[in-house]
Amino acid sequence: MSTISILGLGAMGTALAQTLLRKGHTVTIWNRTRSRAEPLAAAGAKVAESPAEAIAASELTILCVVDYAAARAVLARAEDALAGRDLVNLTNGTPGDASEFGAWVAAKGATYLDGGIMAIPPMIGEAGALILYSGSPALFERHRQALDALAESRHLGDDPGLAALYDLSLLSGMYGLFSGFLHASALVTSVGGKVGDFLPLLLPWIEAMSGTLPDLADKIDSGAHHRNVVSNIGMQKIALENIVRASEEQGVASDFIEPMLRLAGRRVAAGRAVDDISAVIEVIRKQK
Amino acid sequence: MSTISILGLGAMGTALAQTLLRKGHTVTIWNRTRSRAEPLAAAGAKVAESPAEAIAASELTILCVVDYAAARAVLARAEDALAGRDLVNLTNGTPGDASEFGAWVAAKGATYLDGGIMAIPPMIGEAGALILYSGSPALFERHRQALDALAESRHLGDDPGLAALYDLSLLSGMYGLFSGFLHASALVTSVGGKVGDFLPLLLPWIEAMSGTLPDLADKIDSGAHHRNVVSNIGMQKIALENIVRASEEQGVASDFIEPMLRLAGRRVAAGRAVDDISAVIEVIRKQK
Ligand SMILES: NC(=O)c1ccc[n+]([C@@H]2O[C@H](COP(=O)([O-])OP(=O)(O)OC[C@H]3O[C@@H](n4cnc5c(N)ncnc54)[C@H](OP(=O)(O)O)[C@@H]3O)[C@@H](O)[C@H]2O)c1
Ligand SMILES: NC(=O)c1ccc[n+]([C@@H]2O[C@H](COP(=O)([O-])OP(=O)(O)OC[C@H]3O[C@@H](n4cnc5c(N)ncnc54)[C@H](OP(=O)(O)O)[C@@H]3O)[C@@H](O)[C@H]2O)c1
Repeated sequence: MSTISILGLGAMGTALAQTLLRKGHTVTIWNRTRSRAEPLAAAGAKVAESPAEAIAASELTILCVVDYAAARAVLARAEDALAGRDLVNLTNGTPGDASEFGAWVAAKGATYLDGGIMAIPPMIGEAGALILYSGSPALFERHRQALDALAESRHLGDDPGLAALYDLSLLSGMYGLFSGFLHASALVTSVGGKVGDFLPLLLPWIEAMSGTLPDLADKIDSGAHHRNVVSNIGMQKIALENIVRASEEQGVASDFIEPMLRLAGRRVAAGRAVDDISAVIEVIRKQK
Repeated sequence: MSTISILGLGAMGTALAQTLLRKGHTVTIWNRTRSRAEPLAAAGAKVAESPAEAIAASELTILCVVDYAAARAVLARAEDALAGRDLVNLTNGTPGDASEFGAWVAAKGATYLDGGIMAIPPMIGEAGALILYSGSPALFERHRQALDALAESRHLGDDPGLAALYDLSLLSGMYGLFSGFLHASALVTSVGGKVGDFLPLLLPWIEAMSGTLPDLADKIDSGAHHRNVVSNIGMQKIALENIVRASEEQGVASDFIEPMLRLAGRRVAAGRAVDDISAVIEVIRKQK
């Protein structure tokens, strides 16, 4: 069992602290708004008076606040406490944010591991939760037991920005799912349907269509968007137009559908109606 | 076993005809471009010289062409053959398209059933394929065995537009999934990753996040977007900004992410940062 400090007790930091406590670790907590520490204190966590005090209290410190501006604000008050310490930062940000912050932390003498939490708070400590890490492999190995108490742990490489890149890629996938769900829900409720009644149709459909992603992945990786196409983009563009027209009929704004129609339309206009929808990736790749 | 005619031999019409042949039905086929009928003729289908001849040849006719303009063009040449016949139209369109076309077909003396195919061609006749129907319940019952040979059959109601509404709702969900997949794939490949290697991360994540949809559905159905929120939209807006910033760093255009950021931003600007992402539905619902 380890001694671990948690800086930041929002929905996620609270779930991290609760899970570590429940699994028998010694947990010290700090949050800008102190009242959020009370329930955890009642459950056995020690409340530190400052980030520096929290960092000094434990072998490992985990930082989880809303963004990097907050992360910098928290550590700005604790610079001198960092030398020789292990810091895991689970705050969401870009690869650039993670690399810059990791370099700053390292310059203060601490060892840095960045992470992206692929779970919502109730999943922490449960099957299905995943945390992606990148940065110091030594820190990752040293605290593996504590990290594994939170979620399945996967170390992607030494570059502290890698976890953020994969985290944001997965979040993109999730926001696509949510975009489609919200549009579908607006359509179904426009005719008086309940979203709860619609889910038994939607969930197996999403699962079935997830089953087409390996084929689309092959097409992207090979660049052969025209090979063995069973759903050509010319036909799909018409289906997208139908969604937009039906949405207009139903009083639903097509913000979530319009990009796919527009980008697919560019491929069709370029004479590629025979390709699969995978070809749309070529339109969103810019020159760096 | 029934006698069934298929009008339209694109990727989908071909899969429908192949499946019915394979399951022992007597199949007559017609396609504007006759050459597409050859492989099916070799497999035992009779080739009709016109849509009218095809309609006259069978107890049931299934129409599956690219859009309603094509559907009208096909039947325009066969008006006089329709009296007393059973027609199932599996062409994608809006509820308005289906209702208008169904009324025209009924005025010619035929019985009309509309349908939306929730499957790609290789899934036809296999477990997991679903076809939604609406329109004549008598036709649906009369030809249930043949329809069930194609997919699980679900009749949603007498209104011929209902199947189209649910079809397009499900397609919206799919296009959301694809939008997120394409954005994520562009990010991952921008750092040299293969999409095929990324799928073992993405697919379980999509499945896990699909598990949050029942909670979002409850919030939409009840209107209580602020109840038991574990991922508030203020925090989520920052994660969306991070996706957009990282995409810029990586040379990926954010067309697929921008709508969620913009619409979530409107809720946050309206003072609703504490709500769940379900609240975004309120922004895409227009006054009819
Ligand atoms: N919730 C999820 O579903 C989820 C899932 C995966 C990853 N994450 C990530 O986890 C991180 C935390 O999310 P959350 O859900 O816990 O957010 P949250 O519930 O909104 O909590 C935000 C936390 O950030 C702190 N904070 C904000 N500004 C600060 C500042 N200037 N100085 C010090 N502390 C500051 C807040 O402190 P106060 O209490 O003082 O305001 C609070 O502890 C984010 O990066 C998020 O992307 C969340
Ligand atoms: N493929 C899928 O994944 C899928 C899934 C679900 C639903 N659907 C729906 O199934 C329908 C057919 O799709 P598909 O994939 O088979 O499309 P497709 O492969 O592009 O074939 C289009 C079909 O429409 C015919 N057509 C087009 N314009 C015509 C006209 N003016 N007159 C007569 N025939 C015309 C074509 O005939 P020619 O051969 O002469 O061009 C061909 O038979 C669409 O409504 C689609 O939304 C498809």
